Amino acid sequence: MNGTETGAKKRVVIVGGGFAGAYAAQALERTLRGRDDVELLLFCRENYTVFQPMLPEVISGTIGLTDVVTPLRRMLKRTHVHVREIESIDVANKTVSVAAGFRPHAHVQPYDHLVLAPGTVTDFRGLTGLPEHALPFKNLADALELRSRVIRALEEADVEGDDPELRRQLLTFVVAGGGFSGVEVVAELNDFVRHVAKLYRRIDPREIRVVLVHAQDRILPEMKPKLGAFAQKILRRAGVELMLGYRLHAATGESAVLAGPEGRVHVPTKTLVSTIPASPHPLVDSLALPKTKNGRLIVDGTLRVKEHDDVWALGDCASVPTRDGSPCPPTAQHATRQAKLVAENIAAALAGDGPLRTFDFKGLGKMGSLGRRKAVAEIFGLSISGFLAWFLWRTIYLAKMPGWGRRLKVATSWTLDLFLEPELVELRLGGAGGAVHEHFEPGQKVFSEGELGDRVYILLSGRAEVVRRQIDGGGGGEQTVAVLGPGECFGEMALLESAPRNATIRCVEPMTVLSIPKREFGLLAANVPGLRASFEQVNARRLAQGAVQ
Amino acid sequence: MNGTETGAKKRVVIVGGGFAGAYAAQALERTLRGRDDVELLLFCRENYTVFQPMLPEVISGTIGLTDVVTPLRRMLKRTHVHVREIESIDVANKTVSVAAGFRPHAHVQPYDHLVLAPGTVTDFRGLTGLPEHALPFKNLADALELRSRVIRALEEADVEGDDPELRRQLLTFVVAGGGFSGVEVVAELNDFVRHVAKLYRRIDPREIRVVLVHAQDRILPEMKPKLGAFAQKILRRAGVELMLGYRLHAATGESAVLAGPEGRVHVPTKTLVSTIPASPHPLVDSLALPKTKNGRLIVDGTLRVKEHDDVWALGDCASVPTRDGSPCPPTAQHATRQAKLVAENIAAALAGDGPLRTFDFKGLGKMGSLGRRKAVAEIFGLSISGFLAWFLWRTIYLAKMPGWGRRLKVATSWTLDLFLEPELVELRLGGAGGAVHEHFEPGQKVFSEGELGDRVYILLSGRAEVVRRQIDGGGGGEQTVAVLGPGECFGEMALLESAPRNATIRCVEPMTVLSIPKREFGLLAANVPGLRASFEQVNARRLAQGAVQ
Repeated sequence: MNGTETGAKKRVVIVGGGFAGAYAAQALERTLRGRDDVELLLFCRENYTVFQPMLPEVISGTIGLTDVVTPLRRMLKRTHVHVREIESIDVANKTVSVAAGFRPHAHVQPYDHLVLAPGTVTDFRGLTGLPEHALPFKNLADALELRSRVIRALEEADVEGDDPELRRQLLTFVVAGGGFSGVEVVAELNDFVRHVAKLYRRIDPREIRVVLVHAQDRILPEMKPKLGAFAQKILRRAGVELMLGYRLHAATGESAVLAGPEGRVHVPTKTLVSTIPASPHPLVDSLALPKTKNGRLIVDGTLRVKEHDDVWALGDCASVPTRDGSPCPPTAQHATRQAKLVAENIAAALAGDGPLRTFDFKGLGKMGSLGRRKAVAEIFGLSISGFLAWFLWRTIYLAKMPGWGRRLKVATSWTLDLFLEPELVELRLGGAGGAVHEHFEPGQKVFSEGELGDRVYILLSGRAEVVRRQIDGGGGGEQTVAVLGPGECFGEMALLESAPRNATIRCVEPMTVLSIPKREFGLLAANVPGLRASFEQVNARRLAQGAVQ
Repeated sequence: MNGTETGAKKRVVIVGGGFAGAYAAQALERTLRGRDDVELLLFCRENYTVFQPMLPEVISGTIGLTDVVTPLRRMLKRTHVHVREIESIDVANKTVSVAAGFRPHAHVQPYDHLVLAPGTVTDFRGLTGLPEHALPFKNLADALELRSRVIRALEEADVEGDDPELRRQLLTFVVAGGGFSGVEVVAELNDFVRHVAKLYRRIDPREIRVVLVHAQDRILPEMKPKLGAFAQKILRRAGVELMLGYRLHAATGESAVLAGPEGRVHVPTKTLVSTIPASPHPLVDSLALPKTKNGRLIVDGTLRVKEHDDVWALGDCASVPTRDGSPCPPTAQHATRQAKLVAENIAAALAGDGPLRTFDFKGLGKMGSLGRRKAVAEIFGLSISGFLAWFLWRTIYLAKMPGWGRRLKVATSWTLDLFLEPELVELRLGGAGGAVHEHFEPGQKVFSEGELGDRVYILLSGRAEVVRRQIDGGGGGEQTVAVLGPGECFGEMALLESAPRNATIRCVEPMTVLSIPKREFGLLAANVPGLRASFEQVNARRLAQGAVQ
């Protein structure tokens, strides 16, 4: 049968715990007050909602690391919050399949009305090396990871005094995407790095590069040219290098490969953030519902998905028409207004008393922080820049944070920040790492002769050469002793024998490898039938042939 | 040659960034002010020093997650801080070997004077199942991990409404060790869980168990019996269950196995913290220097290691004699005084103007927080308990935190905490998980028939039976279709075929397995020569035999 049981409670299932989903649930709680016959269920990946506009502040730690997010259970008093991902949706049978938790069994939950608000994802698939080496900047974990990587890079640069190439990689920070998100991230990142680097005695401030990569000829294309130009001036003055007209083409573990007006440019870096592209959420992607070319769900003005009376969509996953026909921009102010409307319309649909209301909101304005008490804003048609815009930015966003307690905490942190130094604690979390993919570009070394063996590699695509230093004959030359292709493994010898690497592996054709850490390889090699034997065979054959690793 | 080069700077190397090491470096900076001929190097695992007495407050998030630690670079202005582990020490040649960073090559650093202060570690080796399933509580990552696990358990309990066994495991929290650390952890944990559980609509407060396990017949053995008894009363009143006379014997993924007066007791739990045992740091363990029976370095009253003029030790890794001959207790107040003394004595040794001073500090007192504005304290011979002791605890520790900025932040957080609700954000960090060990006790299921396959297992020791539901014959019985022993793998079928588990695996003899996540297995099986083939062979053989997984 369809939906929840007849006679039983009606059920509204909300998918997504971002601003759109969380506020939709909150608005439904208000609109349905007193109606015990409706049950609200919200499914989300994390138990909090992220206040996106303030996420970049996590990088510098200006506000408490968890104050930028709001626990959903504090916002929602009546909704059942399930911190579980949805694996699939069956629109015909009106059910959602919930991913497993501790116990690996799936749940299927029926619904009467479905509210889709999973947002978008930063999807690096298909972009060479990006899934392996670039960081997205979407949620709290991304922001904390970026912060930790920046501090780690500074710590390493302070120790690795005599390796100029490695220092260049460590001390260059690249952000791709010159929209609001990218600009705010690069501004915070730049302020933070330049401020704390003073504490590292062996880092010369002139060694630090912070680069913003943007495909168009000016940043903040959403704003008036005057404000974009102002933002560029402020960022440049603060030390940010703007690479306009460049696109992020590929990434390796030690460089960002940019495509620009004069061809490819390699920027050495170990810290690469990309705020683009914003792709449809995989769940939306998999649904057979009407979508726009860029994968957003087509809804009518009432936020109902075309041809489906019981499926609603809002927020970044939906293409919501405004009165003039153009779609709503993906901002928090639009999401919260849509949330209110969808709640009213669902209540009306449940009660059977139409007609439904139509979305009608023009937007109040746009704001972007540039760090160091500067911002740009367009509000009620006015263009504002500098300190006043920054003051507005803070005041408006503070007022928009959910919950008084959180506002108080953030206001206090901001006050203390006026006279305290930024935080410098590197939070290293995360357990044992498993196998990962890595991408290499021609000329790049995977490892060098003489180094300690800490990983084993399997070449998945591309080609590499095995190179040894020439001992006899002198002259410091080198000799290529073998070329490796897909399916071949390398680096196992140093692990099996606990000796330093006896050759250098250098990429010849762009290649992707599976990289297995020493601990993981040890665990598996010791216990998986046939694995160690298989590697030992390769090893023995190579020794016999005089080839090397 | 020995030490650093003649004519060049003298070098003091400090190993460890805890209170002892960090304060030793700070004291050396002061004592050696103006002496440019001495270089200070400090090696530490993290770039901050943890203020241990306040670490439990991270669980509830009362104070900012990073305010409980101090970045070393803020404390130390002249010392070169290297965030690297030391792999080995060569006392004869006066060098330390530094672990690799991003580039896998080791550094060797010479020293003139060596200061050892790596502290102790919570070492679960040799304790069945503890390395796999128990959490230590030593550093910031441990505290954050515990906090996240507690929130995760509550989230899961809220969803898994119809599995009473799983709910019991999720809603029971066990802390082992009734010393200061264990008592403070259990008090904070209990307050936090009981407070936030109110936000979970499907959790009945009576389902929550918080258990403190302690081998002796009263907790806080370091204090007077009266104060221990007071602490017990306060904890019990707050809802903590005390299991006195019990020792943590083993652990599995779903229970703590305790050894008590009447034999073994299994406490179902998914959250087990153990603050014991405190074992010597592996680095100290590996040194051929004179040590006490419990592995602490034997130093004389000047903090010099016996028979070594240039090796000094302090803090928890050293057995420092007091005037009456008994060793110093491992507390922060002793460590900071030792730090001052070691700095003076090293300065005197460098200048060649003896005699060295001898350690002489009796300790000011002891304090332990019991949560909810209660504590116990012994100060200047007085026993204090309740609110006054708690007020003293806060005031004294606040005054002892390094840095005014941090004190201000903590004082502010404490003030806000008086009228704000505790934080509930689950920080989920950490990347892709690799293979891990898991321990199972007899009767425990690894997985059940019909569940989704999310891991592959290799049995390393012990025995398990493969059980299937009886279909023909009826009656809901089950049939043992095979017994598995060391070296055998199971669970691969559900992964290879993407079907639900077609049998239950139940432990028969205590067993340890290597557990490989689906993603990891997929990556490896697709690419490692021979691995997939080897699993497929096993699978085919089993299918042919009619045996099952």
